[in-house]
Amino acid sequence: MLMLDEQQLRAHVTLNDESLRRIEDAFAALASGQAVVPPPMALDVPECQGEVHIKGARLVGAPNMAVKIVSGFYDNPKIGLPMSNGLVIVMSAETGVLQAVLLDNGYLTEVRTGLAGALAAKYAAPERITTVGMIGVGSQARYQLRALRLVRDFRRVMVWGRRIDAAAAYAREMTVELGIEIVVCDAAERVVRESQVVITTTPARRPIVSAEWIHPGLHVTAVGSDGPDKQELDASILARADHVVCDLVSQCARLGELHHALEGHLIPNERVTELGQHVLAGRSVRSNDDEVTIVDLTGVGVQDAAIAAYALERAV
Amino acid sequence: MLMLDEQQLRAHVTLNDESLRRIEDAFAALASGQAVVPPPMALDVPECQGEVHIKGARLVGAPNMAVKIVSGFYDNPKIGLPMSNGLVIVMSAETGVLQAVLLDNGYLTEVRTGLAGALAAKYAAPERITTVGMIGVGSQARYQLRALRLVRDFRRVMVWGRRIDAAAAYAREMTVELGIEIVVCDAAERVVRESQVVITTTPARRPIVSAEWIHPGLHVTAVGSDGPDKQELDASILARADHVVCDLVSQCARLGELHHALEGHLIPNERVTELGQHVLAGRSVRSNDDEVTIVDLTGVGVQDAAIAAYALERAV
Repeated sequence: MLMLDEQQLRAHVTLNDESLRRIEDAFAALASGQAVVPPPMALDVPECQGEVHIKGARLVGAPNMAVKIVSGFYDNPKIGLPMSNGLVIVMSAETGVLQAVLLDNGYLTEVRTGLAGALAAKYAAPERITTVGMIGVGSQARYQLRALRLVRDFRRVMVWGRRIDAAAAYAREMTVELGIEIVVCDAAERVVRESQVVITTTPARRPIVSAEWIHPGLHVTAVGSDGPDKQELDASILARADHVVCDLVSQCARLGELHHALEGHLIPNERVTELGQHVLAGRSVRSNDDEVTIVDLTGVGVQDAAIAAYALERAV
Repeated sequence: MLMLDEQQLRAHVTLNDESLRRIEDAFAALASGQAVVPPPMALDVPECQGEVHIKGARLVGAPNMAVKIVSGFYDNPKIGLPMSNGLVIVMSAETGVLQAVLLDNGYLTEVRTGLAGALAAKYAAPERITTVGMIGVGSQARYQLRALRLVRDFRRVMVWGRRIDAAAAYAREMTVELGIEIVVCDAAERVVRESQVVITTTPARRPIVSAEWIHPGLHVTAVGSDGPDKQELDASILARADHVVCDLVSQCARLGELHHALEGHLIPNERVTELGQHVLAGRSVRSNDDEVTIVDLTGVGVQDAAIAAYALERAV
């Protein structure tokens, strides 16, 4: 049984074309019925602003399968602890024997989520963009921006966060890392109005992005909502969009932005497609640069299984 | 972060009055609404006769919570591997930080399942019994018999297994271990007819125990069924029983013997009680020695959380 710590996993698994392809293949497997994905399990601790998500999947024919446990305790930074913790368990798909414990402290979740964001942009964003808008300035906002570079060039980033100091720190760090201009905005509205691609990564429980800010050609990847009470986008945005794409419709209908749009009867279920369908077809979601596209990501077990298998391969 | 292997866990956690009390307390917490128990997750591999069950729970006020991953691959023994594998993850309930990885290979599941069986008998079996019947002769059949000794005295065991050699091995081993007479039967019928307590521990997908064999005073603990397709008891047995008790009604209605009885409209939901209610009340399920009692166990996350917390306490 192999045990890998976060440092080893960070060395083996990075955001690059190869890891992106693994996540792309996982979505293709999902769309073609070659994946077993039980509904995720949640263990919430509301009194500590905490939540634990357990996701797992098996790709048919793969030698192993994975179960991922990741926690988010939003008050941890106040006491000097990382918000996210967790690990991934890899078992043989033929015998159930434990193959690896990946003590990633949530790192692999950050990576596979960033890569799903890149795929969302690859298949739904306009080909040519200049400005990217980031709503939320936490750890995942960093992974999203890094991963986006795998699929799109951009010159400028507009960023908004609830805490202005955290937004400033984000801008400072990512400017150095990526060598591009990053502008801190004091209103989410300006970020959305001036960007062609907007990525939301907050744990918001009330919509941050208003429908009036949506403009022709805009692509939005909504990453934050992964629970029934979470919501980043005004639900009517999904009704106004030309295309609404989910990572997994059955999950988004319970845990994602789609949940609120369906609850308000703002969008018929049959208007929604899945990311994997577009990956399989190898075609862009949009038919022109003026359409509005929304990709709703809740995080699917196949991503965890794929990134864990990749980590294991790289380590062995 | 503490890591304990199977050998250490076997040394720290045994079937005794203390571990029994922990499982009893867990059922009391469940019945009094002091437990958060998400529905279990399953990852099946039908082409390899394999299944993985993921269960988790949090006892309100407890310092930690647990997620258990256990696999059963029924063809493993043919290639010299144990059927069951797995581990338990313990996290802080206050920060989500990983506290322990219990590499138990399914041992803690065997123990907590055995102890739930003991509780079933404690609250539902007649006080005085002489003969215990075992349907199934695998590993869990051993734990059930050992745990039963914590709550009932008995003089004789009748045992039936699909494979006569495995039944003979069971009888040999358990006679030496417990110092009592164990009779191998070539028909399950005789086991049921001659016993006051019957415990079923098979992965059967068709009923083994027929309704005609049920006799006044019989108590049955059905342990084997923990999936929608599994079934050990003729569903009409639940209709005929004076008392039907589940470890968790919502689970048994999907995964247990109750599932088939409800599907056949053989029993109204309101006739079913939960084990924890009887633990809380501190009273026997039965009002006399002639009633027939059935306890349907599917295995609840609170058991995993309780036994993991106990293991951690013992180890630290």
